[in-house]
Amino acid sequence: MENNDYSHLKEEIISNNRIFDGKVIKVDHSRVKLPDGGTADREIVYHKGAVALIAVHQEEMYFVRQYRVAPDDFLLEIPAGKIEVGEAPRETAIKELREEIGGVAEELEEIQEFYVSPGFSNEYVYLYEARDMTIDVQELDDDEFLDIVTVQLQDLKKLLQAGAFRDSKTIIAVQHVIAAYNL
Amino acid sequence: MENNDYSHLKEEIISNNRIFDGKVIKVDHSRVKLPDGGTADREIVYHKGAVALIAVHQEEMYFVRQYRVAPDDFLLEIPAGKIEVGEAPRETAIKELREEIGGVAEELEEIQEFYVSPGFSNEYVYLYEARDMTIDVQELDDDEFLDIVTVQLQDLKKLLQAGAFRDSKTIIAVQHVIAAYNL
Repeated sequence: MENNDYSHLKEEIISNNRIFDGKVIKVDHSRVKLPDGGTADREIVYHKGAVALIAVHQEEMYFVRQYRVAPDDFLLEIPAGKIEVGEAPRETAIKELREEIGGVAEELEEIQEFYVSPGFSNEYVYLYEARDMTIDVQELDDDEFLDIVTVQLQDLKKLLQAGAFRDSKTIIAVQHVIAAYNL
Repeated sequence: MENNDYSHLKEEIISNNRIFDGKVIKVDHSRVKLPDGGTADREIVYHKGAVALIAVHQEEMYFVRQYRVAPDDFLLEIPAGKIEVGEAPRETAIKELREEIGGVAEELEEIQEFYVSPGFSNEYVYLYEARDMTIDVQELDDDEFLDIVTVQLQDLKKLLQAGAFRDSKTIIAVQHVIAAYNL
C-alpha cells in the first residue's frame, strides 16, 4: 500500500507563541516550515487526553446525558473523563466508570485509541470496554451534573441511524457494540 | 428511557474572556453558573466545523496519509477539510473530495454528524459517503502535503483491529463501511 518513509510530508515548528496555559488546554500559535520550504501558521491545542468507556450490563448499554457548554447542547455520551497528571489511562477509566455511572468492572479491555481532531489538537482518547460489571451508586465531582441513561442493546442500531448519538467517541463505541454483539 | 427536560443539567455562561481569535479556532475562558448555583471555569474552543468523506471505488477505500503537527504524527485519515465561512457543508465536501483524492461523486449521502470533542470544543463534523465516484487528479492547497493511500475493502477490519486508523472520524468511517459492506 505505501512505504514507511513519510519525511516528504513533515512540517517543522520554527517558532511558537504560547497563547493560553489553562487547566484543560494549552494553546499555541506556531509557525511551521512546510515540506517545500515555505511557511504556514498553525493553531494548536494541547490536551492531556481522556478515557471513554463502553459499559454493558444486563442487555443494556450505559450512557450519561449532560450539558456541554462548548456546543451549548445536551448530549447522550458514553462515560468519559480527562486523564489527570500522573494518572495511567486505565486508572482514569476505573475512576470515571465508578464516578459517572457507579460501575465496577472485573476487567477493562482496550478497544481503540484515537486522536479526536488531529487537525488542531493532540487530544488522545483511550476507549475501554468494561467486562463483568456491577452497578453501584454515582459519585460525581462537585462541578459535574449528569443523568444516567440506559439503552436496550436491541435499540442501539435504530438510535444510531436516527442520530441520537452526536459525539465521536460515543459513535465509535456504539458502532463497536453493534458489531461485537451482532445487533 | 428519559424525559426531555434537561434544565436541571444546564450551565449558564456568566462571563467570557476571549483569549485568542485565530483563523481556525477562537478560544474563550468562561465562567459558568452550575445547576446547583455554584460556579466553575470552562476553557472553550470554537471552530467552524469540518466535513469528512467515505470514498470507495472499485473495492478500495481512499485515505490520505498526512503529517499533523498537533499530535506530531503521520496519520492515515479519510479525506476531510474545514468548512469555510459561507460554505454549506456539502459544498465543502465536494471541494475536499476533489482536492485531496481527485474524487468526483454523482451523489453525496450524509452518514453521520458529530461533535469531535464536546467537552471543550464545538467542532462539528459532517460525514458523507461519495456515491458513484470517479477518480481524477489531486488539486491540493498550497500548504497541504499528503499522499493518497488506497486500502482493499477486505483488509479494513484487520487494519482497524490492528490500530492502523488513529483518529475519530476515520474510525467512525471505517466501522461504517465494514458494517455497510458486510466485511
